[in-house]
Amino acid sequence: MRVVVVGGGFGGLQCVKHLRRAAVEITLVDRQNFHLFQPLVYQVATGALSAAEIATPLRAIFKRQQNVRVVLGLVTGVDLDARTVTVQHQPTGDAGQLPYDALVVSAGSRYSYFGHDDWRTFAPELKSLEGALDIRSRILGAFEAAEVEPDEERRRAWLTFVVVGGGPTGVEMAGQIGELARDTLRKDFRSIDPRAARVLLVETTEGLLTAFPRSLSRKAARSLRQLGVTVFLEQTVVDVTAESVSIATSDGTSRSEPARTAIWAAGVEASPLATVLSVAAGGDVDRAGRVTVEPDLSLPGHPEAFAIGDMVRVRDATGVAQTLPGLAPVAMQQGRYVARVLRRRADGGRTKPFRYADKGNLATIGRLRAVADVKGLHLSGLVAWLTWLLVHLFYLIGFQNRLIVILRWTVSFVTHGRGARLITRGGDASESR
Amino acid sequence: MRVVVVGGGFGGLQCVKHLRRAAVEITLVDRQNFHLFQPLVYQVATGALSAAEIATPLRAIFKRQQNVRVVLGLVTGVDLDARTVTVQHQPTGDAGQLPYDALVVSAGSRYSYFGHDDWRTFAPELKSLEGALDIRSRILGAFEAAEVEPDEERRRAWLTFVVVGGGPTGVEMAGQIGELARDTLRKDFRSIDPRAARVLLVETTEGLLTAFPRSLSRKAARSLRQLGVTVFLEQTVVDVTAESVSIATSDGTSRSEPARTAIWAAGVEASPLATVLSVAAGGDVDRAGRVTVEPDLSLPGHPEAFAIGDMVRVRDATGVAQTLPGLAPVAMQQGRYVARVLRRRADGGRTKPFRYADKGNLATIGRLRAVADVKGLHLSGLVAWLTWLLVHLFYLIGFQNRLIVILRWTVSFVTHGRGARLITRGGDASESR
Repeated sequence: MRVVVVGGGFGGLQCVKHLRRAAVEITLVDRQNFHLFQPLVYQVATGALSAAEIATPLRAIFKRQQNVRVVLGLVTGVDLDARTVTVQHQPTGDAGQLPYDALVVSAGSRYSYFGHDDWRTFAPELKSLEGALDIRSRILGAFEAAEVEPDEERRRAWLTFVVVGGGPTGVEMAGQIGELARDTLRKDFRSIDPRAARVLLVETTEGLLTAFPRSLSRKAARSLRQLGVTVFLEQTVVDVTAESVSIATSDGTSRSEPARTAIWAAGVEASPLATVLSVAAGGDVDRAGRVTVEPDLSLPGHPEAFAIGDMVRVRDATGVAQTLPGLAPVAMQQGRYVARVLRRRADGGRTKPFRYADKGNLATIGRLRAVADVKGLHLSGLVAWLTWLLVHLFYLIGFQNRLIVILRWTVSFVTHGRGARLITRGGDASESR
Repeated sequence: MRVVVVGGGFGGLQCVKHLRRAAVEITLVDRQNFHLFQPLVYQVATGALSAAEIATPLRAIFKRQQNVRVVLGLVTGVDLDARTVTVQHQPTGDAGQLPYDALVVSAGSRYSYFGHDDWRTFAPELKSLEGALDIRSRILGAFEAAEVEPDEERRRAWLTFVVVGGGPTGVEMAGQIGELARDTLRKDFRSIDPRAARVLLVETTEGLLTAFPRSLSRKAARSLRQLGVTVFLEQTVVDVTAESVSIATSDGTSRSEPARTAIWAAGVEASPLATVLSVAAGGDVDRAGRVTVEPDLSLPGHPEAFAIGDMVRVRDATGVAQTLPGLAPVAMQQGRYVARVLRRRADGGRTKPFRYADKGNLATIGRLRAVADVKGLHLSGLVAWLTWLLVHLFYLIGFQNRLIVILRWTVSFVTHGRGARLITRGGDASESR
């Protein structure tokens, strides 16, 4: 049986791994040659970790799993009736067809710019590795520019950082910029005091980390303020330019904050493949572009085609589509579930509907500061931070990466330094070769 | 006294460090925010090390040295009479002026394309970090393209790698691609056998590593052949396109080798600042664009302005300009020498002319394979390799980097793997965000 898995993220990876003993031929398609440990991308964006430490080559992961073939390419189409996937191979751009007997699409989501894709140029997204490297160059470049800027007002704009979106990524990012400015870079400059940097975190809803209990969400806001982050709740970004971010409050007034660096971590939009699948299966997508799947995660009318992760809504026993949190554990459990469905089917067996086992929610804010909601247990401070540390190290792929990350975190913790503070091309005005 | 140091490479860094107790105000200008450990750049190009491991932020290096100010910018002009340096600040592009009482220019060199700058697009240089990341994406992307290429001839072109230049960088690079193909990637693909990859090393002169004794140069060629590298001596690249490299032999005939990946490590050209200084001081540059400096490394007629490293030729006691090898130890010794001259002058003392203390020459070819010429002692094999290992770890800047590099090398050595095999933007056709 030929299984095509689209996407080497958390969901796709678990699915492929759990088919290792099945009598199947798997083709794993991804447009990048590595699995990205997305929960730590913000640490690359602030120079705490280097790109290779949170990205593991897919071929290295599946070197020994003989029933997998990795293909580098962008999936541009799916024909559910003919059971083929169209791939645009990378780096050549040549088109190819992959026939399948079973299909698993795990293409994830990205941040949406509320329909303003032109903001992307001024406020790169913090989700991909490339976004993170771009943001790293911009943040460090802003301090460099401030150091040589004689005009106070312009200097202040260089030292203002706006983080859009108060979810885990936005919160973690704002906290890290706060630490970078007050701690890591404190003694690095001669003309400016990096501690004068302003970090603004803008969130449309009434609280940060809405997936967490209210008490933890408030604690997170308090921790951020201690790191010098200004938290704007119930405020919305209405314009982004190279030199400012316009923010509207709930009473309808808006103001312009002079800021040379903006970082986008708001709005979720499923991969365009969700729409492709939805149209092919004759269904609708929700506002975030997610495709609705059956209780066994297959597409309506296509028991051989599955979609998993944060690009789907799952229909429950009563037929109502539910949105699960866009977290790695959800995608991982769904990946393993689909692998089990495929193995059972080969034996003629059936599988119960998918059920998400909620193990909790974690977010870190800075040194010794984190919040954790583990099966109703609300943790904060040191205990939450240690939990966060262990969980992230445990799930990080690759023995070598784990060792290096432990080493980097230990050295950073002791010296307050960050080893990977490089400005490389991709930054705003930084020239390349 | 205001000292302006241009370039945070080996020479500039040593000069600034050895002025740490002097009563001077130093401004260190570099267009990048990090010091690059250039001898290991080829390891980034083959995924053995990650960028941050061989690049240390200049601000981190000089955090505690209070008499240094780091400025990020490109030096676009030097006025020797007015004693000012013109800087184009990064990332803003704003122009600035830096007045000085003493100037030290250590701007290095780059590879020349024999006047064919259009080849640069198809054969990126292996000297900068960005060049290395580009090359890494291209090499890995070529294997990816070969894996899905049905046509045998085209597949063969994807699996052909041409390294131009038989100096240490070219030799090390060719050896590493050989190991990557025969060892690291051996089990990573399903359709192709990476061991079928051809690595061609093209050198214009009659031997590799011309700075080494003849016997070691022959040993290096033999080691490379054992790694599957084809060595073409007394042959010259006469054209490079996206799909082929044309090579001419000494008898005047030329042939075209179908190859999708070419890497440039040939021809040396001093930084354009050498010409700027030469013109300003009323002198000539040599064929490689180097400026001639006095026995004390100052510019003729300008005892307060120095140039060091591989952008200069040094006049000896008899007035003849000598070219020293373009190695890190030369630049480092010159940087320390100039710092000493400046310190002595402040005390009213004089300094003997600069003399290069040749400590030897090292090049590695692969696992357990290296050549070393240490004060006339000709080493090869394991002893040379261990010497190479220790010397490079010793000179690598930053405790954290040293630990991580030891860890990566150990893991690579044991597992035959390479941790940083990422295809990121900058590669040939690989799309970005």
